[in-house]
Amino acid sequence: MSPKITTELLKQLRQVMKNPKYVQEPVQAYIVPSGDAHQSEYIAPCDCRRAFISGFDGSAGTAIVTEQHAAMWTDGRYFLQAAHQMDNNWTLMKMGLKDTPTQEDWLVSVLPEGSKVGVDPFIIPADQWKRMSKALRSAGHDLVPVKENLIDTIWTDCPQRPCKPLIMLDLSYTGVSWRDKITALRSKMAERKVMWFVVTALDEVAWLFNLRGSDVEYNPVFFAYAVIGMNTIRLFIDGDRIMDPAVREHLQLDSTLEPEFKIQVMPYGSILSELQAVGAGLSPKEKVWLSDKASYALTEAIPKAYRYLTPYTPICIAKAVKNASETEGMRRAHIKDAVALCELFNWLEKEVPKGTVTEIIAADKAEEFRSQQKDFVELSFATISSTGPNGAIIHYKPVPETNRMLSVNEIYLLDSGAQYKDGTTDVTRTMHFGTPSAYEKECFTYVLKGHIAVSAAIFPNGTKGHLLDSFARSALWDCGLDYLHGTGHGVGSFLNVHEGPCGISYKTFADEPLEAGMIVSDEPGYYEDGSFGIRIENVVLVIPAETKYNFKNRGSLTFEPLTLVPIQTKMIDVNLLTQKECNWVNDYHQKCREVVGAELERQGRHEALQWLIRETEPLVRVQ
Amino acid sequence: MSPKITTELLKQLRQVMKNPKYVQEPVQAYIVPSGDAHQSEYIAPCDCRRAFISGFDGSAGTAIVTEQHAAMWTDGRYFLQAAHQMDNNWTLMKMGLKDTPTQEDWLVSVLPEGSKVGVDPFIIPADQWKRMSKALRSAGHDLVPVKENLIDTIWTDCPQRPCKPLIMLDLSYTGVSWRDKITALRSKMAERKVMWFVVTALDEVAWLFNLRGSDVEYNPVFFAYAVIGMNTIRLFIDGDRIMDPAVREHLQLDSTLEPEFKIQVMPYGSILSELQAVGAGLSPKEKVWLSDKASYALTEAIPKAYRYLTPYTPICIAKAVKNASETEGMRRAHIKDAVALCELFNWLEKEVPKGTVTEIIAADKAEEFRSQQKDFVELSFATISSTGPNGAIIHYKPVPETNRMLSVNEIYLLDSGAQYKDGTTDVTRTMHFGTPSAYEKECFTYVLKGHIAVSAAIFPNGTKGHLLDSFARSALWDCGLDYLHGTGHGVGSFLNVHEGPCGISYKTFADEPLEAGMIVSDEPGYYEDGSFGIRIENVVLVIPAETKYNFKNRGSLTFEPLTLVPIQTKMIDVNLLTQKECNWVNDYHQKCREVVGAELERQGRHEALQWLIRETEPLVRVQ
Repeated sequence: MSPKITTELLKQLRQVMKNPKYVQEPVQAYIVPSGDAHQSEYIAPCDCRRAFISGFDGSAGTAIVTEQHAAMWTDGRYFLQAAHQMDNNWTLMKMGLKDTPTQEDWLVSVLPEGSKVGVDPFIIPADQWKRMSKALRSAGHDLVPVKENLIDTIWTDCPQRPCKPLIMLDLSYTGVSWRDKITALRSKMAERKVMWFVVTALDEVAWLFNLRGSDVEYNPVFFAYAVIGMNTIRLFIDGDRIMDPAVREHLQLDSTLEPEFKIQVMPYGSILSELQAVGAGLSPKEKVWLSDKASYALTEAIPKAYRYLTPYTPICIAKAVKNASETEGMRRAHIKDAVALCELFNWLEKEVPKGTVTEIIAADKAEEFRSQQKDFVELSFATISSTGPNGAIIHYKPVPETNRMLSVNEIYLLDSGAQYKDGTTDVTRTMHFGTPSAYEKECFTYVLKGHIAVSAAIFPNGTKGHLLDSFARSALWDCGLDYLHGTGHGVGSFLNVHEGPCGISYKTFADEPLEAGMIVSDEPGYYEDGSFGIRIENVVLVIPAETKYNFKNRGSLTFEPLTLVPIQTKMIDVNLLTQKECNWVNDYHQKCREVVGAELERQGRHEALQWLIRETEPLVRVQ
Repeated sequence: MSPKITTELLKQLRQVMKNPKYVQEPVQAYIVPSGDAHQSEYIAPCDCRRAFISGFDGSAGTAIVTEQHAAMWTDGRYFLQAAHQMDNNWTLMKMGLKDTPTQEDWLVSVLPEGSKVGVDPFIIPADQWKRMSKALRSAGHDLVPVKENLIDTIWTDCPQRPCKPLIMLDLSYTGVSWRDKITALRSKMAERKVMWFVVTALDEVAWLFNLRGSDVEYNPVFFAYAVIGMNTIRLFIDGDRIMDPAVREHLQLDSTLEPEFKIQVMPYGSILSELQAVGAGLSPKEKVWLSDKASYALTEAIPKAYRYLTPYTPICIAKAVKNASETEGMRRAHIKDAVALCELFNWLEKEVPKGTVTEIIAADKAEEFRSQQKDFVELSFATISSTGPNGAIIHYKPVPETNRMLSVNEIYLLDSGAQYKDGTTDVTRTMHFGTPSAYEKECFTYVLKGHIAVSAAIFPNGTKGHLLDSFARSALWDCGLDYLHGTGHGVGSFLNVHEGPCGISYKTFADEPLEAGMIVSDEPGYYEDGSFGIRIENVVLVIPAETKYNFKNRGSLTFEPLTLVPIQTKMIDVNLLTQKECNWVNDYHQKCREVVGAELERQGRHEALQWLIRETEPLVRVQ
């Protein structure tokens, strides 16, 4: 990896920072955040502005360019990568280290008195704007919105914003029509006494209209906004894709409809002016509901007194609770996914000893097997295919420079998933193709105990996921081991593989209580730097539990694994398991054998079926 | 309980709300919060203004009086009590119920346009002021500070503010001199670049100067403030108590001292004007550190740009980590406390079957035994002595109207503690003096399993207490049982029985990470409304743990029980315990027998010793 040479680019950027064509007054600093206008986790190439200006293309980072300096803030996952990808013009600000200044403190220390700091108001979330603006103001500077994105003005070969065709999902996939979703949303709006709701997150627009897209890799979404009134629906979307007769039919654009379900289609770029018009026309007590993570530009379009901001929108919360059709779809998707992985692991078992399978080959093979399954669309994230020391890099993605050969001497960790039209998968298995050491087995077994502790946990209705995080760590903690990531995240239904508002993490965040129908991952791990990585991940569905006393009718919940891929028993030190844990593994494997076995049989994949049967032999615990 | 008749009082209050002698402009509403000027949990009689105006004397509640209405907000613990204690002039606002308006919403709904809402700026914390003020302003009203407390103007027989003699603690109790504490504080101030620190919490003043008082029942504190500069120390305190030669010597008031350790003693009432003078004299970049819970009055004395507010002060954090002298003191206090409880339980075993022991008699007897111990000062909170259905009332305190006879047919729950000069105790034991039912034993055993799960937990350095809360619930959850309170709170060292900044709770609050030397309670429970209550509480010390892999040198922590009182084995269903849990109980009882036994022997309390030996017989688990 050689760094990107940015001298000329920075010179150009510093020129436009003073160019009256773009800025009312010169800005002494310009902030380039990671995100797009929808605060997406995964972004399209045209939105990779921070990578363009700096060369650093990790998933998290903020660049700030002043007349004299260029600095990049990123977290521990990316210190090495950022240092490799950026040239000497850039100073790396290592977040989380004690001596690293915050962006605000750094700006205050380097800026001349009374400076202006510019940022694209569409890219910065309103809550971040508020914090940054306050800190700068108290030091005598000003945060100012720069309407035209300054990176775009110098990015001559910037790719087009994608505008791919839409995919329509019918009732058999979604369970609920978009009309019924709008009606439910309006009743939530009425409850809170708001007149308008602004849909800014791409997965929320997609979910609301039962549409999917492919504008962003791995996430089946499309660039759009929506503004829902009590009697109006406005969809802001570009391109011919809305001229597709099937889409017009799906959205009933050409039907005579009750006016409150008539969708007005408007250009994507007109959202701001339309929202400003809404803002200008509000009567007292008419509130407008926005996510508090919506962009500063859209938030400002609504006068402060009329804003109703919440961390999670009613769509985010409704989307998280999967209905029967979605749950069935997720089950199907996970069975197909398991078929693909049984094929893969069977193939790896044969091929790895030959010394010809690299991490990239294994990842490609996994994709090949998945793509043979019905309704396969694409992967749900970049496959983490890592062996030996690479397994300890939590967000590893094999590239030619790091690509390692799988062998019978090292642990192999595969974290992968796919988008199927009926569901989204995300599964991690850790395998050894030779003989694992006692220490590797010990660590694996603690991780497994943590995985089981979460998966088998019973808890009262209304419990927040973060309360379950320590269950996943307890067995590791007892021996003085831990892992430095959360235990689980929400998973979309043929949507983003990471979604709110629930999760399982030691980080205190405003997660919503778990309820039946929610889907999260359960993925404890253990990482030994320079040596190996272990993670066991299932996607699990929140379901009602049967308990002796049922929490005085408050109700009990537990998890049902949707992922049905064998956990390598060779890696388990059975004597470290309790009988209950041992039974859990055997019951789980029995279910894998029955459910996935039947599908392997149906698909005529006999060799993989034999592998599955071998891998699901019951554990026997020596008393 | 008959309600307090408040018609005349409310009439008087409404008059002073318009009296130009007290208010610049008439206020249309007046807020009477619970607290005192130090945001204390326990308050002195002269500060019980909300109880005076309404009759409701629970520990939590806010009264708001308008020209037409009088309303009281309180939480579920007090719905019944508040309804009984208040007359028809008052509307009870049941917090936590869906239809109950917030104070702000209610005010907006009942006030005429452009109203003024008054509140004593010394009683309302700055963060609450901010929230309330913002909500009122956005509805066209104003929150205004009323300097003279309006309740005090009509409270003709208001008790005097207590001004009791001070207790000096020498180095053998505190381990650190007040001079060294000031030096440590100043270095924290230098780290944060603040020039002044304002000590507003009573326990923080007491801790800083190694002084104790008895101005507030149960809490060994005295009314005072302090303002610490980099070169000055100002102590705001009233009365002759500072004329006591021993106090003068302790504070070195008459010695020639380096100027930076010279304490200027000032009247308690002069804090505001002195702080305003500090505020007026600040140069740019000179910050003043305050708790964000300090009163609005004191916070406003410092211009906004100069304030440095944090949820926990450096004193709060330093105070939480007990040094060797404090830890040893806490150990001694807990051994004495255990002696008293062995005496009590031995006495109860003999007396209860006679049918002559009520909840109040038992509580008094507990106090009697405690008061026989060396360095006993007072109780650390009102004893919860509850039998049968009263045990299910979590904050129960026996009064003549509810006083119940202990019997061989009901579970008895005793939650009690004391202040000794060397430490503070807080212990709950649940006993049966006859034969418990299988269900009672089952529930007790789940609670015990939860207690052990926390007490024996091993976790990495830097873990926050809230991550351990679910360990206490897991065994209950498995059967569909739970309890609706947190699992633990910080405990002071001859100071408040509840203190920050750490705790163990499912409620997400900004707790600081646990570290060795911190002391918290471990008190899971189970409550069956109308029938019984179970709670098992030890005070535990955070200590380093030995683990196999020691978290890559991050270090391991666990707990050591300071409380050494037998857990009634009669209540345990041994077959529900794992062997590990069984061993924990036996080891714990062995330690009780050895340590407390030796002290009982030394004190010549032979009958209680026999009781202890009987109660600490090892459990035997049938395999």
